Amino acid sequence: MSASFPLLLLLLFGPIFCLGHPRLLGDPARFSQLKSSNYTWQTKFLDVPLDHFAFTTNRTFPLRYFINTDSYKAGGPILFYTGNEGSLESFAENTGFMWDLAPKLNASVVFAEHRFYGESKPFKNESYSKIEYLGYLTSEQALADFVDVIWHLKNKELQGASKSKVVAFGGSYGGMLSAWIRLKYPHIVNGAIAASAPVFWFIESKIPEDIYDKIVSRTFNTSGCNWKAVEKSWMVLDSLAKQAQGLDYLNKLFKLDSKSLLKTSEDVNFLKQYIREAMEAMAMVDYPYPTSFLSPLPAWPVRAACKFFTKVPNTDVKSAEQLYQVVNLYYNFTGDKATFCADASKCESAFAALGDPLGWPFQTCTEMVMPLCGSGSPNDFFWRDCPFTVEKYGDYCEQTFGKIGYKRSMMRPLFATQNYGANSFPTASNIVFTNGYLDPWSGGGYTEKTHGSVVTILLKRGAHHYDLRGEHPDDTEEVRRVRQREESAIRMWIA
Amino acid sequence: MSASFPLLLLLLFGPIFCLGHPRLLGDPARFSQLKSSNYTWQTKFLDVPLDHFAFTTNRTFPLRYFINTDSYKAGGPILFYTGNEGSLESFAENTGFMWDLAPKLNASVVFAEHRFYGESKPFKNESYSKIEYLGYLTSEQALADFVDVIWHLKNKELQGASKSKVVAFGGSYGGMLSAWIRLKYPHIVNGAIAASAPVFWFIESKIPEDIYDKIVSRTFNTSGCNWKAVEKSWMVLDSLAKQAQGLDYLNKLFKLDSKSLLKTSEDVNFLKQYIREAMEAMAMVDYPYPTSFLSPLPAWPVRAACKFFTKVPNTDVKSAEQLYQVVNLYYNFTGDKATFCADASKCESAFAALGDPLGWPFQTCTEMVMPLCGSGSPNDFFWRDCPFTVEKYGDYCEQTFGKIGYKRSMMRPLFATQNYGANSFPTASNIVFTNGYLDPWSGGGYTEKTHGSVVTILLKRGAHHYDLRGEHPDDTEEVRRVRQREESAIRMWIA
Repeated sequence: MSASFPLLLLLLFGPIFCLGHPRLLGDPARFSQLKSSNYTWQTKFLDVPLDHFAFTTNRTFPLRYFINTDSYKAGGPILFYTGNEGSLESFAENTGFMWDLAPKLNASVVFAEHRFYGESKPFKNESYSKIEYLGYLTSEQALADFVDVIWHLKNKELQGASKSKVVAFGGSYGGMLSAWIRLKYPHIVNGAIAASAPVFWFIESKIPEDIYDKIVSRTFNTSGCNWKAVEKSWMVLDSLAKQAQGLDYLNKLFKLDSKSLLKTSEDVNFLKQYIREAMEAMAMVDYPYPTSFLSPLPAWPVRAACKFFTKVPNTDVKSAEQLYQVVNLYYNFTGDKATFCADASKCESAFAALGDPLGWPFQTCTEMVMPLCGSGSPNDFFWRDCPFTVEKYGDYCEQTFGKIGYKRSMMRPLFATQNYGANSFPTASNIVFTNGYLDPWSGGGYTEKTHGSVVTILLKRGAHHYDLRGEHPDDTEEVRRVRQREESAIRMWIA
Repeated sequence: MSASFPLLLLLLFGPIFCLGHPRLLGDPARFSQLKSSNYTWQTKFLDVPLDHFAFTTNRTFPLRYFINTDSYKAGGPILFYTGNEGSLESFAENTGFMWDLAPKLNASVVFAEHRFYGESKPFKNESYSKIEYLGYLTSEQALADFVDVIWHLKNKELQGASKSKVVAFGGSYGGMLSAWIRLKYPHIVNGAIAASAPVFWFIESKIPEDIYDKIVSRTFNTSGCNWKAVEKSWMVLDSLAKQAQGLDYLNKLFKLDSKSLLKTSEDVNFLKQYIREAMEAMAMVDYPYPTSFLSPLPAWPVRAACKFFTKVPNTDVKSAEQLYQVVNLYYNFTGDKATFCADASKCESAFAALGDPLGWPFQTCTEMVMPLCGSGSPNDFFWRDCPFTVEKYGDYCEQTFGKIGYKRSMMRPLFATQNYGANSFPTASNIVFTNGYLDPWSGGGYTEKTHGSVVTILLKRGAHHYDLRGEHPDDTEEVRRVRQREESAIRMWIA
């Protein structure tokens, strides 16, 4: 099974927040090259209203969903994935847990695409071209789309399903959506598995704004990395970049693509960020068996990276080389890459295209304003770009979306909190929130103690929504137990 | 205390559903003539987004609210009325229960206006002029407005209120909103009093479509009316209207305004409808003490009306006279009216104006599609205009709103159900649902048994949201007990 899911999140979800001045990664073309899994489904479309919450237009558009009824028996439950910020295939291919459950529960398996991603673009190729179109990309509209799909499944498409129970699944932003759809539509969705969902990563949640890289650093530190060695390496890069000779050395050491060569001492920030993203990503996907992402990775990739960082080197050159090893591990594990591009905007033509990769950034510039920055030593082993400010983030948003009519006043930093809750869900029931201790996103997860049917599970050896993956021979005992617990909860909800 | 509230509902809420071919009543000018109560408040405005659920525009508009902090002590609760389909004054003046509670609870009292009514029109006088404006009149947007007001009160306006509890109050459509705001925003609103809220009056709720007039008939029947006498009277009108002489007689008997004279046998339907509306209204406002509405009414008005209907008359003329007595009672209790207008659209210039009176009809043509019709004998003592069909209702909608760009496909008869629930609220808590057995709207109320903190109360001698009214010497023992129970529930929620 290929495993693009966490990567997709990394691309579209991770880096945006990791940056004082957010950049975008992501080349949609790459996703189409992913090796397909063994899962099969029928692709369908349902017309849904462009705007569920106003009646200024009667425009509709076809929302894509995948369905498999191989295990379904009349009246059996619907296992329903609430699609994230990306094309739907990845989620269908990388949520093996649902596929593993279906035959045990006589269930249908459905994955619904999030509007404005993949093939669910309300205005097709023009969807990202102006604010009057893109403005309909919101989580509330997406949830209402999903409700329409569920209604259609129960009342039209699936035989004998009018009383079928519905269980929502999602990881990361998809996990936020699965929790929220249960909270907002409990008469439609009977329970939810919300894996690694940073539901409390908003301004009013008051989580530490620097928690993300703190956790990344902790994951590396407990995997054998020498904290001082990492800290030193950035200073070495800064120092080398101050001289022409040093820049030359770095360009060669990191085999930088001719389009992204470092030319000034400032340019080193792109390289540093490129490496930070690799490390952040490895913490997110620190799984116990080899998985294949943008570049394939070995089992426990953080441990593998830390082999290069066991002690503080006694020369600058050795410090720089440590970092190169990390780059080579994360971006080139298969060894077929001749050069690296530290600044995607310079190397990749697809980057500039308006489309999916700008979807999540747009969401973070409207209602999903999630404060995130690094505070550096002694909290994390990167460098300081805190504080996060709405003003600074607004600069980025205006710069990115101003040309399509976005205005800074469209950012509503309090809205997600007002709409969904800042740090508690007082009436929640039938939700399992899982978080992985290794995963930086766990810093904004639901952490209240288990109460009633709201179950909180922390996977000590878990990365980003590890539990949603399919069974694997090298799975930890812990994740097996967690999946059993999730299955038990689901059986209660659908009983 | 004047008591325009139930009337307002009658005008804007009641008649729309009572008709096979809906007409509109309501002359906004009249409301301004209402005698004001002794309650006082400050009028304020808060800028809220025109569209909470999309980012195609950053337009905002000022939403009106009333606030009184005479009893408020720092940290005390906020008693918050979720405004209905009408200008705010009526709700502030006719929800004495909130005013009575405030000093006992050290509470602030707030009434928030529903968008597109009163002085909360996003596009001022143009608000009803085209679908691109009026389309933003939805219940979801209104709830989000209210959330903004609450957030503002807690964090900006009210001193020491950041942790204040919030209790929502509402009657009729306002009661639907108070229940829904607790369901959808439990992190914002701690509990809700939902009085006479027909939350389950939607197509998928599957309540009998003819329940409304069944209850009206029952209320009259148990108040002394002779069922056969009423049934006969309609046949007499039909029969008289078939001849020129009979029409002439009816025009004189009912003192019809020269603009609404009956000219053909078909015209009698306007007169019949005019009388049915009076009877429906009296069932809604069948309170134990005199109240003052469009026309003032005596205590227990249904009982008063039934004095004219104790037995079946032996002549047609006497039958017709019975009906005239009802007209005279409801529309002319003070006796200063010289003529009656059976067809408001012909007599009243304000009727044709685009504005508030068309607000609720618009809502019923988009998401608040509430099936309602009369099935006649033996179910009710009126006549048959069932079945209710979406197609037939669509005709009315297109005819009324087509000129501003409304299209029939904008009607989404399943939406309220999908959004709020068809006939259960599986995760509800901290809501008191009250219904009055005399009130036709009780037919679509929440009727599950009390479970946990969701309390269901039926007032056997209660009309439309009687419990929300202020204390009165002639109150029934029953309503006093109910208000005590509501107060106890509120004290639990805010403890």
